[in-house]
Amino acid sequence: MNGAECLLRTLARNRVEVCFMNPGTSEMQFVAALDRVPAVRGVLCLFEGVCSGAADGYARMTGRPAATVLHLGPGLANALANFHNARKAYSPVVNIVGEHSTRHLQYDAPLTSDIETFARTVSGYVRTPESVCEIGAAAAETIQAAVRPPGQVATLIVPADFSWSESTEPGPVIVRPPRHAPDAGRLSIAARALRSGEPVALLLSGTTLIGRGLEAAGRIAAATGATIFAARYSARMESGRGRFRPARIPYFPEPAVAALAGLRHLILLEAKAPVSFFGYPDNPSYLAPHDCAIHALASLEEDGTAALDALVEELGAAPLAYTRGSEAPIPSDGPLTPDLIGRAVAAWMPDNSIVSDEMISSGEAVWLHLLNARSHDHLPVTGGSIGQGLPVAVGAAIACPERKVIALEADGSGMYTLQALWTMVRESLDVTVVIFANRRYRILDIEMRRTGAKGFGPAAEGMIDIGRPDIDWVRLGTGMGVPSTRATTVEEFAEQFRQAMSEKGPRLIEALIN
Amino acid sequence: MNGAECLLRTLARNRVEVCFMNPGTSEMQFVAALDRVPAVRGVLCLFEGVCSGAADGYARMTGRPAATVLHLGPGLANALANFHNARKAYSPVVNIVGEHSTRHLQYDAPLTSDIETFARTVSGYVRTPESVCEIGAAAAETIQAAVRPPGQVATLIVPADFSWSESTEPGPVIVRPPRHAPDAGRLSIAARALRSGEPVALLLSGTTLIGRGLEAAGRIAAATGATIFAARYSARMESGRGRFRPARIPYFPEPAVAALAGLRHLILLEAKAPVSFFGYPDNPSYLAPHDCAIHALASLEEDGTAALDALVEELGAAPLAYTRGSEAPIPSDGPLTPDLIGRAVAAWMPDNSIVSDEMISSGEAVWLHLLNARSHDHLPVTGGSIGQGLPVAVGAAIACPERKVIALEADGSGMYTLQALWTMVRESLDVTVVIFANRRYRILDIEMRRTGAKGFGPAAEGMIDIGRPDIDWVRLGTGMGVPSTRATTVEEFAEQFRQAMSEKGPRLIEALIN
Repeated sequence: MNGAECLLRTLARNRVEVCFMNPGTSEMQFVAALDRVPAVRGVLCLFEGVCSGAADGYARMTGRPAATVLHLGPGLANALANFHNARKAYSPVVNIVGEHSTRHLQYDAPLTSDIETFARTVSGYVRTPESVCEIGAAAAETIQAAVRPPGQVATLIVPADFSWSESTEPGPVIVRPPRHAPDAGRLSIAARALRSGEPVALLLSGTTLIGRGLEAAGRIAAATGATIFAARYSARMESGRGRFRPARIPYFPEPAVAALAGLRHLILLEAKAPVSFFGYPDNPSYLAPHDCAIHALASLEEDGTAALDALVEELGAAPLAYTRGSEAPIPSDGPLTPDLIGRAVAAWMPDNSIVSDEMISSGEAVWLHLLNARSHDHLPVTGGSIGQGLPVAVGAAIACPERKVIALEADGSGMYTLQALWTMVRESLDVTVVIFANRRYRILDIEMRRTGAKGFGPAAEGMIDIGRPDIDWVRLGTGMGVPSTRATTVEEFAEQFRQAMSEKGPRLIEALIN
Repeated sequence: MNGAECLLRTLARNRVEVCFMNPGTSEMQFVAALDRVPAVRGVLCLFEGVCSGAADGYARMTGRPAATVLHLGPGLANALANFHNARKAYSPVVNIVGEHSTRHLQYDAPLTSDIETFARTVSGYVRTPESVCEIGAAAAETIQAAVRPPGQVATLIVPADFSWSESTEPGPVIVRPPRHAPDAGRLSIAARALRSGEPVALLLSGTTLIGRGLEAAGRIAAATGATIFAARYSARMESGRGRFRPARIPYFPEPAVAALAGLRHLILLEAKAPVSFFGYPDNPSYLAPHDCAIHALASLEEDGTAALDALVEELGAAPLAYTRGSEAPIPSDGPLTPDLIGRAVAAWMPDNSIVSDEMISSGEAVWLHLLNARSHDHLPVTGGSIGQGLPVAVGAAIACPERKVIALEADGSGMYTLQALWTMVRESLDVTVVIFANRRYRILDIEMRRTGAKGFGPAAEGMIDIGRPDIDWVRLGTGMGVPSTRATTVEEFAEQFRQAMSEKGPRLIEALIN
């Protein structure tokens, strides 16, 4: 067994079962070994940013790492932006990067670069084995590092000669470290704050937004009057009808500050104190009132759900049933807006869908309707590096082949990693992509005003307008094999989306919005 | 004048006149200032890998830096792969990266990352000013660093508050440092080797491959019998009829070793001793014979052309006229192959064309014909990070608006940065793109065998086959506004390419090859 096979077998025995890859010469041994280790499924992506985003989406939905196999420093470079998002999502990823053979490295060949420095920008753990004998152990340690709570991108750099040389046994099966429950002292401080009668809120993130945590938070809210916030840039949130709905802290600092105004206690569960996305000349970055006490009940690494369970018990908070919100009506026809798309999506998305959300300027209008949609998982922007939505949808669809994945994607962001459409077809993924085509970097219209930039002449306009030429997403989609249509009215969109929900397989709708 | 305008004015007075950009919130002040500093032209790219590749192409054709304006760490991350290629091309680039405002940085917002570490992977110079007052001087120093021979990517990181705050005067006009001529000692060693009667070769790279250098090398070859090699991964080479044709060191180590076998002296002019692109189990990486003396006549930073001129004088080498090679005939019809495409391209490309070459596995067959084409500049792969060809064509076309640019592009590589097609239309660039569509990572078929990987089952095949689904480049091209056609026979290709050469503006031909 050579080093590449040893590495793949170490992945397989640790249930790292999917490998998003774009290999080159230095990774040929991994490619060859795929047929000998069928427990690891290779998924080809035509650009590495799709690999890293897909691994992020896979991790968000399974809690387990996928692997990426990338070609040298430049292949890793192309993956970094979506690894940045994975890092901010605390997604475990086992990132395998091929390196020149150790003998070749000294010659500064064209593709030679400082892979470790590339890797450190996004990885909490970077390892280059010293010899082929270390490969199995190094792979196991990389997996171990990836899954260490709260989860991170862990990078293993593998020289080509270690891949082609004879290796020893695969690495061990790792034991996944548990999240620890917070200690009694912090629990009693939180309980005291909740009973204080003073304005108090819980801010939930991480694993508390899936499973029992949200329900427990709802019970605490009902029992104490506390406000429950969800951190806006969390990796995943269960949402839709039949579930408790936390408030979402607004994007811009003014409404965010208003939402938190008057609070005396903010209890953090796998969350950090909220800050604005960008800094502005005349706004604060820190959003909570300065006299609001911050109680870090569960750190990012700890078990926030256990903390919520303990609070429920301590407070004697009773179970609740959640009434479904009423569905917003859909007009029979008229021009298409994000609001109307949101209504249509909410009306027809099936139960247990997964929504990959990179709508940017269209997001707020759609979000309100998603809250009343059938039960689903919502995968938002985490690190703000655009080009995440389509790759995350790929990963989520591979993680959950029985569920419908809906990628709600801005046109500007979608252009960053449009190659993901090809992998959706190659792997027959059940993904419906909705492109919000306003043909502008619309968010920048708003930001241009906010940053106090004066003037907005034709040269500036040219940097924000992404029409001239208009991008034809129907052609781009069909060019990569995705059945694609364009909707310019509510009626067209509703018809196309309803049909997409009734079928399986990749589908793209370009929604021309106003 | 705010910091952003101060920076742009510093660029303008140093003739950094083009700015390839994809701005975000933290760069809004640059965008607004474009209308106040019309000497700097903003060129929008829909993905940062297009910005960095275009800046590389611009620098290769002008010898002067363009600027890039990128959004924070992730925007820079997307540009790194083509900056890697620019680094290996020794292209001067002034890379401006926005950063969060200094006040915001402490809060670890979603888009916060370690920009300096991202930048160091590809930049020889990284600077973050300490205050807005430093912006002008820092910009001038960044330009100075970029143009320092042999040229490099220099990065200036600009916090948003420095852009929006009131600034002082623009930075100074820098003095571009000259390349120094090599000293007499090295010249006389080289001359002695050339007169020794022993097998001797010159290896040319850098600025010796454009202008007088090639011609001087040809005279030296005729006078002494020396072999003249061009380094394969040089930024730019003047080629075609009427010019001296150096030999190109082959890609794979076996023929490369054979080409250099028997040499006793290898004289380097702005070049490094040749090494193979990849390392292999049973081949050397270092390609010259071990008993071949390496004479570094002109270092990468020095003036190799002056050295060649001095050798010409020393040796009394007479001027030469180069006979044109005969054109290869083009059959009237039949299936399309790289060889036949090469014949057609060579037959119809106009004089003074620019060829951006990222043909990968098709390259060798086409190259032979390009040598007999009309006079042109050849821009080859330098760093081996795929996705360079289309962006480099964008930059070259902006640098040389009167010249026809021909991008010869592999389908697998083209998918990496296909967003470049949009900028070709936005800027009405005179670029003809030929996609060599073999629907495979064909080079990996070869590399798979070479690395000694045994077996090649269906899982491995799936990582190399980029059909299933076939990519329809006509749809992708037209989806971004480029008039696009498909050629499946020699007749179709010849007709389409000839027409493209007779017209101006962006054009794409998908050549389905066998």
